Amino acid sequence: MSKGLPNKENDFSAWYNELVKKADLAENSSVRGCMVIKPYGFSIWEKMQSKLDQMFKETGHKNAYFPLFIPKSYLSKEADHVEGFAKECAVVTHYRLKSDEKSKGVIVDPDAKLEEELIVRPTSETVIWNTYKNWIQSYRDLPVLVNQWANVVRWEMRTRLFLRTSEFLWQEGHTAHETKAEAEEETLKILDIYSNFLEKTMAVPVLKGLKSENEKFAGAVETYCVEALMQDGKALQAGTSHFLGQNFAKAFNVEYTTSEGKKDFVWGTSWGVSTRLIGALIMAHSDNKGLVLPPNLAPIQVILIPIFNSEEDYEKVLNRLEKISNSLKKQNLTCEIDKRRKHKPGWKFSEYEMKGIPIRIVIGPKDLENNSAEIARRDVLTKETINVDNIEDHIPKLLEEMQKNLYNKALSFRETNTVEVTNYDEFKEIFKNKGGFVYAHWDGTSETEDLIKKETKATIRCIPISKSSETGKCIVTGKKSKRKVVFGKAY
Amino acid sequence: MSKGLPNKENDFSAWYNELVKKADLAENSSVRGCMVIKPYGFSIWEKMQSKLDQMFKETGHKNAYFPLFIPKSYLSKEADHVEGFAKECAVVTHYRLKSDEKSKGVIVDPDAKLEEELIVRPTSETVIWNTYKNWIQSYRDLPVLVNQWANVVRWEMRTRLFLRTSEFLWQEGHTAHETKAEAEEETLKILDIYSNFLEKTMAVPVLKGLKSENEKFAGAVETYCVEALMQDGKALQAGTSHFLGQNFAKAFNVEYTTSEGKKDFVWGTSWGVSTRLIGALIMAHSDNKGLVLPPNLAPIQVILIPIFNSEEDYEKVLNRLEKISNSLKKQNLTCEIDKRRKHKPGWKFSEYEMKGIPIRIVIGPKDLENNSAEIARRDVLTKETINVDNIEDHIPKLLEEMQKNLYNKALSFRETNTVEVTNYDEFKEIFKNKGGFVYAHWDGTSETEDLIKKETKATIRCIPISKSSETGKCIVTGKKSKRKVVFGKAY
Repeated sequence: MSKGLPNKENDFSAWYNELVKKADLAENSSVRGCMVIKPYGFSIWEKMQSKLDQMFKETGHKNAYFPLFIPKSYLSKEADHVEGFAKECAVVTHYRLKSDEKSKGVIVDPDAKLEEELIVRPTSETVIWNTYKNWIQSYRDLPVLVNQWANVVRWEMRTRLFLRTSEFLWQEGHTAHETKAEAEEETLKILDIYSNFLEKTMAVPVLKGLKSENEKFAGAVETYCVEALMQDGKALQAGTSHFLGQNFAKAFNVEYTTSEGKKDFVWGTSWGVSTRLIGALIMAHSDNKGLVLPPNLAPIQVILIPIFNSEEDYEKVLNRLEKISNSLKKQNLTCEIDKRRKHKPGWKFSEYEMKGIPIRIVIGPKDLENNSAEIARRDVLTKETINVDNIEDHIPKLLEEMQKNLYNKALSFRETNTVEVTNYDEFKEIFKNKGGFVYAHWDGTSETEDLIKKETKATIRCIPISKSSETGKCIVTGKKSKRKVVFGKAY
Repeated sequence: MSKGLPNKENDFSAWYNELVKKADLAENSSVRGCMVIKPYGFSIWEKMQSKLDQMFKETGHKNAYFPLFIPKSYLSKEADHVEGFAKECAVVTHYRLKSDEKSKGVIVDPDAKLEEELIVRPTSETVIWNTYKNWIQSYRDLPVLVNQWANVVRWEMRTRLFLRTSEFLWQEGHTAHETKAEAEEETLKILDIYSNFLEKTMAVPVLKGLKSENEKFAGAVETYCVEALMQDGKALQAGTSHFLGQNFAKAFNVEYTTSEGKKDFVWGTSWGVSTRLIGALIMAHSDNKGLVLPPNLAPIQVILIPIFNSEEDYEKVLNRLEKISNSLKKQNLTCEIDKRRKHKPGWKFSEYEMKGIPIRIVIGPKDLENNSAEIARRDVLTKETINVDNIEDHIPKLLEEMQKNLYNKALSFRETNTVEVTNYDEFKEIFKNKGGFVYAHWDGTSETEDLIKKETKATIRCIPISKSSETGKCIVTGKKSKRKVVFGKAY
């Protein structure tokens, strides 16, 4: 590897950008705001997809695929949706190019103008509910539990790899139900899937809660979210699950015949997580040596590296490593032996530290004599020498321990950086300095929320589900507050 | 199910359209030329993806993701590419909408015009080679073996579900190599992956060959393809693998330092298969009762249906079916018990025939007494009654037999519909009537190929790899021919 990373304590943002680049995760493309997800970064996304997809399928959801393009007129059918959402979009106006004799290039053919412009989907509620109109006639057709893995485009002026890009990859679930209660249950079921995924697979603790009116999805009745705290004290919205009520059903006229023979509009939900999760993963765990991956998401969990001075040693060491690798693979661990001879072991150590491989096993000629191996763990950067005969038992346990350790470390960081405050000066002081999650009473109005945002850049991350509600007085206006809500500066 | 399908012998095209609809595979969306792939259709695509992805990974390829948009100027960097390919495209000209007070809708914001138009990718050679320029400096960086699963858009005037749609899903591999020989080897390696996948997983026999100059990919030095014959006697190009030479490396200036310290341009390949394969699958095997799926691609391989007159029977029958289902699942077969009580067994039989489920197991009260079960196979529509104790052994063997049977049936159809002709009248007669594959001598010129296409609508499907070359005389001009080539009317 070349030089190290900027220090994350000094310049978190520079550290993040360099890490994404040096760990070979992604890069900016020459197309404004669009990223290239490099093979290593994409392999992490594939692990995320595979686990989430399994969780969706286990709860009865099926994948489908809907068009990339949305007719412009669809966007204005749901009044809030168009107002709050669908503005910064890529607009397709023509469908043909033609040769330009002058420039030897191509120009847009003015004769190929579309009658109605098409919008590259920023999200698919409109085009999907327009389809559901034909799928749903009777209560027998419900529920519809559909998900799609897709690319979406939201034109962004200031972009950041994984966190905010004009094009990103995501999954979007869109479900339709007979009753309000069923749709609400679905919204919360998905919220649980997201929080389980973040906590158990990504080792990132999250707060589950409801968004305020200011922050909810345009077109939703309620937006639930999972919010995580990053190492710089900023909050990151990691996923959202929307209860849509009958809003989109009414906008697209999706009526069904109930079991009693009456007509009613269908109840809906939508929900999504995106490649932004890779940004969350990086900012939650990584350090100044590079990426730190939780074992449950690492594309390679164990890297095996030979050390040798002679050809004879090389063969013997490799032979030993292959035995170990095979025994670990039998336990469904993903291992790789780095046999490359053009790189020195030290170079390889740094590279795998940068890429966040959880465990490194090194064997050299002396280890052959002693029947030993050096085991290095990425999370705490410690090394130990153990007997080769114990490796088979030791490694799976160590990976499990590391997974827990990463979660606990992130949880303890969040706890240390969460406070409850009762006065606004204290509140302002916190967001001027270290950030974190702040529980405070709020009077429930958009005006107060706007004022706080203007003065401190902090927003309501969520109205937490888990905390029992306890009334009090708004820290800004002194008016009555039903419960404390969680503030943070958001990505 | 509602009424049956149009007869495929009378109207193949109507049969195909109705089958796609009735088997719940896909439908036209309200966006011109774009399809909705419904959950059942998508589950077949997922099976295809999963198998292909595994084959790509086993041969060292990694997935990545590149931008949806291509700057207009990129398309004209490779002269042949722009000339032959990149014309019917969706063009993004603006990046913002704004509210329209008059219409209460949205209009394109004229202030948000892009400086350079963006093209929705019709294929990604240009944007990817522009990226490879930064990835490749030295021979140590080679080979680059990358694939992406993505959506692409090619504006089509006449569309057909799966076969020709403006937006479709595909995989596109893009590799870079040190030498010409390596790139050629890669091109053929992929062609083998495609032909193995089609023959072993899809049970569709293919011809492997080279495209003529008229039919090759714009920007390639050579295009290899796999061609399959459909039940209506038309040919379908199922996949292509292109040897790009140094064309794109030169267009995007991708030079590397060789191991001898010299500079050279990189050698490239690209290759793809798409959701069109689902069209091929349907047209190769299905019949007048609906879809016929080869067991290796069926999302559900075995459907189990209970028959009962009383609650008591229902419980007992279900209990028996569950035991069978569990024992089959242990052998990694995918089974489902249809417990729905609002549909009669006969209705269910028709539905699963329409959806192409390979095996149906039915148990009723009499079967309980006799310890028997009725087994129906979808490919030949036969039924047999067997002892329940034999099911566990019988079903996996039967699935294997069905997989082979479908392949052999399709192969025998192709053989029956393949002829070698030596005169042009005979040739014209064949394409006037039944179609099929026709081997004939051709003088190697585009003029003759164009003439044949004009007069018969048949094109050169490929210059076959496997046939040994044997010289002769062109059936049209009588000029010298190096070898016979394969003609067909193409989808």
